[in-house]
Amino acid sequence: MPAPTLDVVAIGNAIVDVIAQSDDAFLAEQGLAKGAMQLLFTSEEAEALYAKMGPGIEASGGSAANTVAGIAALGGNAGFIGQVADDQLGKVFRHDITALGVAFDTAGRAGEPPTARCLILVTSDGERTMNTFLGASQHLPASALDKGLIESGAILYLEGYLWDPQEPRAAMDAAIRIARGAGRKIAFTLSDGLCVDRHRGDFQRLIDEGRIDILFANEDEIKSLNQTDDFETAVAATSAKLPLLVVTRSEMGAIAIADGERFAVPAEPIARVVDATGAGDLFAAGFLAGQARRHSVEDSLAMGAVCAAEVISHYGARPEADLRALVAKRLG
Amino acid sequence: MPAPTLDVVAIGNAIVDVIAQSDDAFLAEQGLAKGAMQLLFTSEEAEALYAKMGPGIEASGGSAANTVAGIAALGGNAGFIGQVADDQLGKVFRHDITALGVAFDTAGRAGEPPTARCLILVTSDGERTMNTFLGASQHLPASALDKGLIESGAILYLEGYLWDPQEPRAAMDAAIRIARGAGRKIAFTLSDGLCVDRHRGDFQRLIDEGRIDILFANEDEIKSLNQTDDFETAVAATSAKLPLLVVTRSEMGAIAIADGERFAVPAEPIARVVDATGAGDLFAAGFLAGQARRHSVEDSLAMGAVCAAEVISHYGARPEADLRALVAKRLG
Repeated sequence: MPAPTLDVVAIGNAIVDVIAQSDDAFLAEQGLAKGAMQLLFTSEEAEALYAKMGPGIEASGGSAANTVAGIAALGGNAGFIGQVADDQLGKVFRHDITALGVAFDTAGRAGEPPTARCLILVTSDGERTMNTFLGASQHLPASALDKGLIESGAILYLEGYLWDPQEPRAAMDAAIRIARGAGRKIAFTLSDGLCVDRHRGDFQRLIDEGRIDILFANEDEIKSLNQTDDFETAVAATSAKLPLLVVTRSEMGAIAIADGERFAVPAEPIARVVDATGAGDLFAAGFLAGQARRHSVEDSLAMGAVCAAEVISHYGARPEADLRALVAKRLG
Repeated sequence: MPAPTLDVVAIGNAIVDVIAQSDDAFLAEQGLAKGAMQLLFTSEEAEALYAKMGPGIEASGGSAANTVAGIAALGGNAGFIGQVADDQLGKVFRHDITALGVAFDTAGRAGEPPTARCLILVTSDGERTMNTFLGASQHLPASALDKGLIESGAILYLEGYLWDPQEPRAAMDAAIRIARGAGRKIAFTLSDGLCVDRHRGDFQRLIDEGRIDILFANEDEIKSLNQTDDFETAVAATSAKLPLLVVTRSEMGAIAIADGERFAVPAEPIARVVDATGAGDLFAAGFLAGQARRHSVEDSLAMGAVCAAEVISHYGARPEADLRALVAKRLG
């Protein structure tokens, strides 16, 4: 197998975000759990919530797609696999990710359902409450995997959210086998506490079977995975089973446990959290870019913290500032 | 004729903006005149430029549509008439404007061309260079005018940009007659210096025939209209023919000449011009909201300056902050 030519190849939902300002009263009225991601299963549900929301801006999103966008912005080489429909929002998604230099060749899917969208309600405290209509994204078939693309990435990065629908779950399973066969590393993000609730058994099995090398989680997710309220208990249990566990802790920064050794990074100071959307995704971008370029775990954590801080300083889940310059400044 | 129930009814392009960061080198490469608006006449031209642009965010736009969005954000009552296609971007436009409480009942147009889009390249100095594919917007027929809606507005506001395509030009002509018949005021924006170049004769005729009560222009436009390089000569010539002329002057604020009397307002101080898109549109929003609510010309100018300052402080041409609160603070 030749040496990898890409730093990271990711498989994730191909989503266009619709970001609108909102308030706690609206979330309560609609019965939405603040800060969480819920799935909207029909286009009628999605239309009904959209009709009640305020005016929005549209921006390409998707958790793992945001991560590869961040890696590209850092000067890394990345690829992406995800399913859009053959419609206007699908064209927007494709334009944005390829304009960043990310390799993306998954063909658009004809007919219904349309390209996935995530209705994101941002409250004045910067918290985002996400309502995802998976649309075409849930129909990524294993047959759409570009084997050569997966083999070309030093790290295969998988999005836990995509474990919900059946076809992409099978595709990710197949992708792990392809990557493993090529001697690549597998990184996985648990994505969301409720998502972990839905798939705890599968996620634990992936870890127990040694199929994950780098696991990303936040506090909620790692506790949910281990069904405990005690953070340290959860971290100890999972880190014992994995080469590398990374846990993001919002304003408390992040930690990594690498082969039993613990590292920590504080959150980067910022003026104000405008929109927390993409914080975890961009942390993963910085960390993975660091790992792919053989930086230390400590430096990789610092790169993650810098990228997360940038993305929460403005609306939208993809970087606007020059991440390379910010990282160079932070690492000195 | 009953008293008007709406402050302003506007006719304009129904456009979704695609906003991307850019630099002077890219503008030069593409032969684009910085700060101006150029028309892209075919979807192929639009696709070709889009393919070369960086990743974007999509947000509802359109000059007069931005203005009514601002009026609504100020607590005013507004209506809008403009042509979208029956597609995803058309749905986005409709959602955003109706979510603001603006009356908008122009039906979507089936088939090609798609909803209009404006590819906006924003350079680090905050200047925006606009490339507009008018799509469905250029097919607004006079038959789509809602006569009752036009009659219900105290002021009919018309977008000069929409003078380019033939069908909307005829529609605006018909709308002026409807509004005049109901005893309403007509406001008109010259939109863009190059647009004035294309339609100088028509615009002068509208003014000479007394069909415009309030004219909005910037320095370029008023000079182009009068084919002079001297600002004061241009202002004197046009203000003599109109009840009310408003000229915006970027960082020099704005002036108004009302029945021979001159008023001025300085630009509101802001930290940094992030994206100048929508400055003129939101100035018009503040000024018209003031006029519709019988504020003085001076206070209307101040309202315009506050709204313009807010919109250039962030990406996108529609207000994000609470304009009502900002205006209340400014007027004291």
